[in-house]
Amino acid sequence: MVRKLSKEELLAKAEEPKKYAMKYHPFYRGKIGVELKAPVRDYNDFAIWYTPGVAEPCKAIHQDTSTVFEYTNRANFVAIVTDGTRVLGLGDIGPEAALPVMEGKGMLFKYLGGVDAFPICLDTKDPDEIIRAVKWLAPTFGGINLEDIAKPKCFYILDRLRKELDIPVWHDDQQGTALVNLAGLMSALKVVGKRIDNISIAFIGAGAANINNAKYIMLAGADPDRMIMVDSKGILNRERTELKETEPTKWALCEKTNKEERRGGIKEAVKGADVCIALSHSGPGVIEKEWVADMADEAILFACANPIPEIWPWEAREAGVRIVATGRSDFPNQVNNSLGFPAVFRGTLDVGAKMITDEMCITASRAISGYAERKGLSDEYIIPTMGETEMFVEEAVAVGLKAVEQGVARMKKSAEELRESASSAIKIAQETMRLRMDKGFIQPPPK
Amino acid sequence: MVRKLSKEELLAKAEEPKKYAMKYHPFYRGKIGVELKAPVRDYNDFAIWYTPGVAEPCKAIHQDTSTVFEYTNRANFVAIVTDGTRVLGLGDIGPEAALPVMEGKGMLFKYLGGVDAFPICLDTKDPDEIIRAVKWLAPTFGGINLEDIAKPKCFYILDRLRKELDIPVWHDDQQGTALVNLAGLMSALKVVGKRIDNISIAFIGAGAANINNAKYIMLAGADPDRMIMVDSKGILNRERTELKETEPTKWALCEKTNKEERRGGIKEAVKGADVCIALSHSGPGVIEKEWVADMADEAILFACANPIPEIWPWEAREAGVRIVATGRSDFPNQVNNSLGFPAVFRGTLDVGAKMITDEMCITASRAISGYAERKGLSDEYIIPTMGETEMFVEEAVAVGLKAVEQGVARMKKSAEELRESASSAIKIAQETMRLRMDKGFIQPPPK
Repeated sequence: MVRKLSKEELLAKAEEPKKYAMKYHPFYRGKIGVELKAPVRDYNDFAIWYTPGVAEPCKAIHQDTSTVFEYTNRANFVAIVTDGTRVLGLGDIGPEAALPVMEGKGMLFKYLGGVDAFPICLDTKDPDEIIRAVKWLAPTFGGINLEDIAKPKCFYILDRLRKELDIPVWHDDQQGTALVNLAGLMSALKVVGKRIDNISIAFIGAGAANINNAKYIMLAGADPDRMIMVDSKGILNRERTELKETEPTKWALCEKTNKEERRGGIKEAVKGADVCIALSHSGPGVIEKEWVADMADEAILFACANPIPEIWPWEAREAGVRIVATGRSDFPNQVNNSLGFPAVFRGTLDVGAKMITDEMCITASRAISGYAERKGLSDEYIIPTMGETEMFVEEAVAVGLKAVEQGVARMKKSAEELRESASSAIKIAQETMRLRMDKGFIQPPPK
Repeated sequence: MVRKLSKEELLAKAEEPKKYAMKYHPFYRGKIGVELKAPVRDYNDFAIWYTPGVAEPCKAIHQDTSTVFEYTNRANFVAIVTDGTRVLGLGDIGPEAALPVMEGKGMLFKYLGGVDAFPICLDTKDPDEIIRAVKWLAPTFGGINLEDIAKPKCFYILDRLRKELDIPVWHDDQQGTALVNLAGLMSALKVVGKRIDNISIAFIGAGAANINNAKYIMLAGADPDRMIMVDSKGILNRERTELKETEPTKWALCEKTNKEERRGGIKEAVKGADVCIALSHSGPGVIEKEWVADMADEAILFACANPIPEIWPWEAREAGVRIVATGRSDFPNQVNNSLGFPAVFRGTLDVGAKMITDEMCITASRAISGYAERKGLSDEYIIPTMGETEMFVEEAVAVGLKAVEQGVARMKKSAEELRESASSAIKIAQETMRLRMDKGFIQPPPK
C-alpha cells in the first residue's frame, strides 16, 4: 500500500501537472492537428485525391451511401462533442474553455486507440439544439462521443441521439466511467472471492457517472434491492418524490434500490456493505474511517473523487477495508476512463457498428478484468494501466466480436482480423508520435 | 505550346486519375486523420494534457476567451463546410458523397499550407440552418472554408457568416478561384504589355466563380463599363430584369457592366476583347476558333472548363490569341485553386485575422504573380505550379502583412516571423508525410 502522505503533499503532487500545463499549452499551441493518411508521391497524386479523380468515389457514394465507410475516413472519425457546461470539476465554463480538454481527449483516442477523434465545442446549451447540431454533423463521423455535458440534459441528449442516429453515440461520463468501474469491481470481487449477485453496494454520489455505475453493475448481475445510493441530500428512497419531475433517472433508482428502506447519509449507507463506490467530491473526510469500519468483511472501496479521494486509502485499510481503488495515478488501482473509450471505439469502428450496446460495454469490462486476471490479480492490482497496450487490443477485439454477435455491426470480422487492425492502428499512432519527436517536428518541452 | 491531342486522347488522360481513384480510395479508406502535435514522453504526460493539468488552461480561457488561440490549436483549425449541393461538376450529391472531396481539400490545406482543415459535411440544405450550424461550430475553429454549396444560397451564407462571425469565412469557389484567376491575368497583362485599367474583358459563364472573377478584376482596377458577361441565355444587359428577384448578384452585373449595351451570345461578347475568361462547360466547341479570331491583338484567353477547355489551346493560338490558360495540369498555365487557399489561410491564421478582406485576396494575387515574374514570365509561364513551395510562403507572408496593415489581425507579426512560421508549418507537414511513407505507416499504393 502507498505510504501515508499528508493532504498537503498530495495536493502539491496534484498541482504539479497544472504548473507544467500552463507552460506547455502556450508552447505547443494545440495538442492535435490533421494528418495525411494517403500518399503524396508527387503533385500528380492530387489529381487522384482531388479533382478530377475524386469524382469517382463521390459518384459511388452517391449511388450507395454506405460505401462512404470504404472510400473515406468516416469509419475512423469520431466527434468529441461538448457544450462546455460540465467540464472536469469546473462547471459551466463555455465551449472555448472546454477545447483544451477535448483536444486532450483527442490525444488519448489517437494514442491509445488509433481513433481519429475531433473536438466539436458547440456554442449552444439548449439540449434540442445540441441534438440538432449533432444530427447535422453526423455524415462525416463514424461515431459520436458526448463529453462534459451537464446533467440531467446529458441523459436526454444521449437517449435521443442513440435512437435517432445509425452511428454509435456514447457519453463518456456515463458509459465510459461505468465500464471501467465495473471492470475494477469484477477483479476486486475475484480477489475477495465474492459473487456479484450476492453483494450489497453503497454508492456515494448520484451524478451521471455513479448513476451509470449502478446501472452497469445491475446489468452485470448485482441485485438492485441490495444497492443503496446517497446524494447530497441523503439516501435515495421512495420519499424523495421531489425527484420525480426534475430527475426521472434518479427517481427510478429511488424506486428500484434500497429495499430495506434505509434512511440517513453516508454513514448509514455504507454500514454492512460489501462494496462502496464513491464518486462525490474531493476529500479527505467525506467518508470517515469509523464508517467504513462498519462495512462487511473483505470490503471493497472505490474512492474516486479528484484530486483527493473521499477517504485516504491507508485510513480505509486501517479500518479493515481490503481493496481500495481511487482516481489517482499515484495510488494503486487507478480507475481511469482512458482504459475504456479508446478501445471500445476501436472495436466498434472496426466492425462499423451502428451502436454501442450496454452488452458491448460489459464485454469491455470483462476484457479489462480478464487481462488483469491473466497478469495476476492482487489487492493492489485489480486494473491495468494506460501503458498496457495489449489490454487495449484485447478489449477492442472483444467489443468488435460482441457487436458482430449482437447483429449491430456493418461488417463481420474475425478475432484475428480485429486484433490485426487494432494493433496496427495503435502502433502507427504511437510510432508516428515518436518519429515526429525524434525528428524535432514535435519539439521537446521548454525548461 | 502543347502538341495537338485528339479529344479522345485528352478525355482518356482525364480518365486516368479516375481509375486510380477507384483503386486507391478503398485501399487507403480515408485520406486524412488526426495527428498529435504535443509530445507523449510517457503516460504521465497525460496528466498535463488531460486531467488534472488541463484544468489550468481551461480556467485561463474561461477568464479570457481570446487566450483559446494560445492554449489550443484553434488558431490552426479550419472547418471545410459543405452541404454537398454543388460538388465538383456533379451537382447535388449529398453530404456523404461530398466527403471524399472535403478530405482531399484537407490534404491540400495541410500539404501546401500546413493548415489543419477538417471536413464538416452537413445534413441540411437550408441556408439558414447551414448558417446556424456554422455559428454553433465556430468556437473550435480559427477559420471557415465553405465549399461546393450551390448558388445563389452560397452568396447569402457567405455574406451573413462574414458579418456575424469574428473568424474568417471564405467560400473557395468565390474568393479562391477569383484570386488565382486574377493572379494569372496580372501576369498575362505584364507579358503582353497591357494595363488592367485599359482593357475590355468578356466573361463566358456566370456562375459563382466567374461572378467573383469579375468582382476581383474590377477591384484590381478594371473598368466595369468594358466588361461583358455571358450566361446560358446570352449577354447580361439591362433587359434581363427576370434576374432582379432570383439572382440579385447577377442583376447587379447587368446594371454595372456592358456600357455599350451589346446583345447576343459568346461570339458577340468576345469580339474585340483584350481578355476572355471562360468558366462555363466542358468543350471543345463551346467557343469557336473564328470567334476568338475577332479578339483584339495580343489577346489573352482563360478557357477553364473541366475536363476539356471551351476551346483547344492550339486552336486559340492559331486564331491569333497570344496567351492561353486552362484548368488542366497537362497544359501550360494551369489556373489552379490550390495556389490560393492554403497560403491565404496560412497567412491569415498566423496573424489571427478576424476576416479575409478582398484586399488580402488581391494581395495574394499580386504575390503569386510577383513570384512568377521573378522566375521569368513567358507566354507559357504566367502562373506557378503546386510544386513551387516558396511561392506559398511568399503569398502567406504578403497576406499576413496585409491583414496587420488593415487592422484585422489579432497579432502583429513581422515579415520575418511570418516567413518562419509559414515555412516551418509547410515543411513539417510535407516531411511528416514522407517519413510516414518511408516507415510504411502509409503503404505504397496497390498495383
